[in-house]
Amino acid sequence: MPHGTTDTASVDASEALGVHLVLELYECDEALLRDNERLSTGIRAAVRDAGATVVESLFHAFSPDGLSGVIVIAESHVTLHTWPDKGYAAIDAFTCGDHALPRRIGERLIAFFGAKRHEETYIFRGLPSPSA
Amino acid sequence: MPHGTTDTASVDASEALGVHLVLELYECDEALLRDNERLSTGIRAAVRDAGATVVESLFHAFSPDGLSGVIVIAESHVTLHTWPDKGYAAIDAFTCGDHALPRRIGERLIAFFGAKRHEETYIFRGLPSPSA
Repeated sequence: MPHGTTDTASVDASEALGVHLVLELYECDEALLRDNERLSTGIRAAVRDAGATVVESLFHAFSPDGLSGVIVIAESHVTLHTWPDKGYAAIDAFTCGDHALPRRIGERLIAFFGAKRHEETYIFRGLPSPSA
Repeated sequence: MPHGTTDTASVDASEALGVHLVLELYECDEALLRDNERLSTGIRAAVRDAGATVVESLFHAFSPDGLSGVIVIAESHVTLHTWPDKGYAAIDAFTCGDHALPRRIGERLIAFFGAKRHEETYIFRGLPSPSA
């Protein structure tokens, strides 16, 4: 259910080196957004459940709240930033190889965050003939 | 010199929680793309020179080549993925606060990678009234 793609969408997506899901999660479960332990555990579990291979991850909590997380996966990366006071989380899932993987990661994270509203955009990365 | 933005570009960018630069670097310096030590040092230096605060970083080298790097900055994150055989590097710079920071990071990385061709897209993240 992508709402849009960049202007590279007119090219053959199968030629892209990577697919990048930009996922905006609004009206998330606010208790979850304030629970950094559940967030860091849950996002890694969601990424694994979607079929990605977690290599290493790094989480950094901000004061008074907000969490940044970066997960290196064998397929590229997943990142997370939360704004608990806005009920908002920003997710990116960039993968190479299996082009359906970002969508599977996104589905799991929309559910995990209990987002009442979301916006997703797919970007094709590393095109042999960019639209520039 | 952005080539395009997502369909959220019509809203007031100043209301966005973050600005995300999606940077495609083509025809990069191939020796650099095969030198993971220079890459990991240089990208952190470029991010700092642009005015961002590096919190923590994580780099993972793939076999036979290719590097993934994720840098948590106080302002959000910068990521890197290289495909040395394609002369290509994928960069993301997501920042909150100073909305000009991604552009400054991008300028430094285009120069650092010696990219003969690049494509940059700016995405406004966390808009109060998404276009959905």
